[in-house]
Amino acid sequence: VPDIAFVNEKFMPLGQATVHVEDRGFQFADGVYEAVRTYHGRPFALDEHLARLDLSLAGIKLVAPLSRSELAGIVHEGIRLAGYRESVVYIQITRGVAPRHRRFPTNTKPTVVLTFRECPPVSDTPLGKAIRIVTLDDFRWGWCHIKSVALLASVLAYEQAHAAGADDAVFVEPDGTVTESTAGNLFVVKESRVRTPPLGPKLLAGITRGKFIEAARSIGLTCDELPVTRDDLYAADEVCLTSTTVELVAVKSVDNRPVGGDKAGPVTTRMFQQFRKVHAGA
Amino acid sequence: VPDIAFVNEKFMPLGQATVHVEDRGFQFADGVYEAVRTYHGRPFALDEHLARLDLSLAGIKLVAPLSRSELAGIVHEGIRLAGYRESVVYIQITRGVAPRHRRFPTNTKPTVVLTFRECPPVSDTPLGKAIRIVTLDDFRWGWCHIKSVALLASVLAYEQAHAAGADDAVFVEPDGTVTESTAGNLFVVKESRVRTPPLGPKLLAGITRGKFIEAARSIGLTCDELPVTRDDLYAADEVCLTSTTVELVAVKSVDNRPVGGDKAGPVTTRMFQQFRKVHAGA
Repeated sequence: VPDIAFVNEKFMPLGQATVHVEDRGFQFADGVYEAVRTYHGRPFALDEHLARLDLSLAGIKLVAPLSRSELAGIVHEGIRLAGYRESVVYIQITRGVAPRHRRFPTNTKPTVVLTFRECPPVSDTPLGKAIRIVTLDDFRWGWCHIKSVALLASVLAYEQAHAAGADDAVFVEPDGTVTESTAGNLFVVKESRVRTPPLGPKLLAGITRGKFIEAARSIGLTCDELPVTRDDLYAADEVCLTSTTVELVAVKSVDNRPVGGDKAGPVTTRMFQQFRKVHAGA
Repeated sequence: VPDIAFVNEKFMPLGQATVHVEDRGFQFADGVYEAVRTYHGRPFALDEHLARLDLSLAGIKLVAPLSRSELAGIVHEGIRLAGYRESVVYIQITRGVAPRHRRFPTNTKPTVVLTFRECPPVSDTPLGKAIRIVTLDDFRWGWCHIKSVALLASVLAYEQAHAAGADDAVFVEPDGTVTESTAGNLFVVKESRVRTPPLGPKLLAGITRGKFIEAARSIGLTCDELPVTRDDLYAADEVCLTSTTVELVAVKSVDNRPVGGDKAGPVTTRMFQQFRKVHAGA
């Protein structure tokens, strides 16, 4: 079975899925997106993802051409058609096709694209090897709470991290606080207390971030949403990143300074096990 | 004759010009662009535009799949095929099509897209009506010297200006200096001296900006590349914006404070006449 896509009202093989060159997603990054994964074939936290998509759409003043329940129907139908054991569903909505000008076009129908790809089964994705991260001065735009496709800065930061021999980068703001990585939220553990940066315009309100906060608190851990500095990272007992597709990955060094070990530390592991127990039935 | 496009090695009607939904231009704003206009049917400053495109490509670490002369050949051929009296040629190069992940794909051929549209004849575009601008705190990314398609912030700023009853916005940096508008460079005139913000990471090295600096100096005006503050704008005798397609447009108010009048002031007009004389044979 080839991967499938949904573009403007119909399903098709992914290989045939195209948009016009004057789609504003292509020429202006004028669009937003979500990525949803399944656990046991069911889309995880779909309502929350679609609610966040609505917030992103509102953030760029774009009215969705589909209701939340219509979109949910397409997600479910695509998962069924694709037939994978586990899927990652990517949803992108742009301001549609119009002769190129930066002003919002009038009477233009937004473009809706979904892709359905296979995701590794839950049993194959336990806590993996820890990664190395570097801190980078944040050069992204100011509205990172909007999940927009204007991702070039994150793409270049990820590459810069790899060029420095690391696996990912976290962004440092002018006030010295760190916010998130190129595609995930950040947690630190110090003396058994968990901390994650508070919500604001320079980080995404990760669905998985919220689930890990809940998981931590439900097993009696203290989990604060408070600023984290670069020095807090250096001094942490454990550091990890969370996202929908990766779930959780432990960090073993920050700017070449060791933090934790080669594997997830004890507190991180407890959070992860609780998250899996509640959400992935594992 | 329908508008035409060039996509990955061939010309086609613009209506049929598409890219894959997993093109990195569509999913990550991972691409750069240029817009070139013609005067009397000949592309204006093409070498400079293609040189800047190379700088933008280098800025995002993308190796162009075509040489500068091959690209120039496509520009000339498209202009001939389109057959307009005057054309605007849009050129976009992205990192190509790959399964979605923020890392650079390997062995992926970049996507090359050009569109050819009609541009108003030179005689129809004298100095038009002056516009109103507002100043906005810059919320764009840090590398605005790269002409990337990550333009969402400029799109939203342009809309914000219109919502405030103005026609465009100029960006103010944390240090209080203004850099450029959503799609053009900025010039101010005070006591017959011309000033434009110096090059740096928060503004594009406009081709037209350079031509206006030359034009000003060639008629004996002082034209400095020095910081411009918001107060400098408020106190200016004349303010104007420059870009390839607009050439020059005068500003009649900044944040609702009048500057100059309803039409371009005397110094702006002299610069414009000299620019036209040298470059547009008019």
